[in-house]
Amino acid sequence: MPLDDLDDKWSAPQREIMNATYRTLLEHGYAGLSISRIGSEYKKSKSLIYHHYESKEDLLVAFLEFVIDRFEATITAGDRDDPGEHLKCIINRLLLHQPAADQWQIQKVLVTLRSQAVTSDSFREQFTRVDDRIVSVFSDIIERGITVEEFTDVDSSAVAEHILATINGAIYSDETTNRKQIQTVRTSLLAYLNTILY
Amino acid sequence: MPLDDLDDKWSAPQREIMNATYRTLLEHGYAGLSISRIGSEYKKSKSLIYHHYESKEDLLVAFLEFVIDRFEATITAGDRDDPGEHLKCIINRLLLHQPAADQWQIQKVLVTLRSQAVTSDSFREQFTRVDDRIVSVFSDIIERGITVEEFTDVDSSAVAEHILATINGAIYSDETTNRKQIQTVRTSLLAYLNTILY
Repeated sequence: MPLDDLDDKWSAPQREIMNATYRTLLEHGYAGLSISRIGSEYKKSKSLIYHHYESKEDLLVAFLEFVIDRFEATITAGDRDDPGEHLKCIINRLLLHQPAADQWQIQKVLVTLRSQAVTSDSFREQFTRVDDRIVSVFSDIIERGITVEEFTDVDSSAVAEHILATINGAIYSDETTNRKQIQTVRTSLLAYLNTILY
Repeated sequence: MPLDDLDDKWSAPQREIMNATYRTLLEHGYAGLSISRIGSEYKKSKSLIYHHYESKEDLLVAFLEFVIDRFEATITAGDRDDPGEHLKCIINRLLLHQPAADQWQIQKVLVTLRSQAVTSDSFREQFTRVDDRIVSVFSDIIERGITVEEFTDVDSSAVAEHILATINGAIYSDETTNRKQIQTVRTSLLAYLNTILY
């Protein structure tokens, strides 16, 4: 979704609350997230937040959607004509060697929110949507590469699932261990794609 | 670590407390886990738990170690002479199409505990240990395959990191989304290994 459309989807007060939630998370972490603290960041009354969202869980589900909309804008931006270059560009964008502090923090937040999906159906649906979306982006690029005869005729969905799992696992380990292997995994993933796609 | 050695490492009361923690987690989930509930499962007094562990976090770190010791026993068991078969055997064991209820539950628990590693150093160390261990198991098998000239001379660490990331990502998605792609990812991962190792 282009960023302009996002501005239609989210009203101005909603966007302000979401940005306040984001700042609160970066400052206090997930454990320290409360409507009161979001209210202070929002610089308007706490009750105004409750006017938009019934509960903290409601707000968090909306926040997750907000983060994901922006995340989608990132993976769909930067279209390239060449399917091989486009694939590489998205993988490089997701598996950054040294992500900016902001991206690293947002990944931290996503890992924490994602663990809630083990027990919360609404969180589970959002993360199903994220993973479906990433697979469909990869799968479409691979299909395009096959059509223009740049790529070999592979099973595009299976390859897209493999890419997704590898990227998810690499980011997950990076955020939950002291191991720094993002770059190794990215190199190996790109080498794998080079081998099977050409 | 063979299971017999585990019995030396963990005293009988410790093992009982760990098994009570496991049962409590399966019944009440992570959010419902309390020393009181573990005490009821343990069928001895709550104070006896505090005799062994100072706090709930202490107990959870020990529990994580307990689960990981058992997990390690699983991946090191089933040694096969043939490196290719051994690799396949471990991957199949980790990426089960339909894991037994118990294994699925323990993976759920691990995803929940792992998200705590974003903020807790002691959890982070444990998961660093897990991932290091898996990579070293895979890497050793690949090295062995190269030595006996069954495999091509690949960068064993890089391939092991790729396998780990793909497995972690596949399990992670399986536990946090409604997508059921474990089997697709396993097939693609094994095909990838077939391509680069032979």
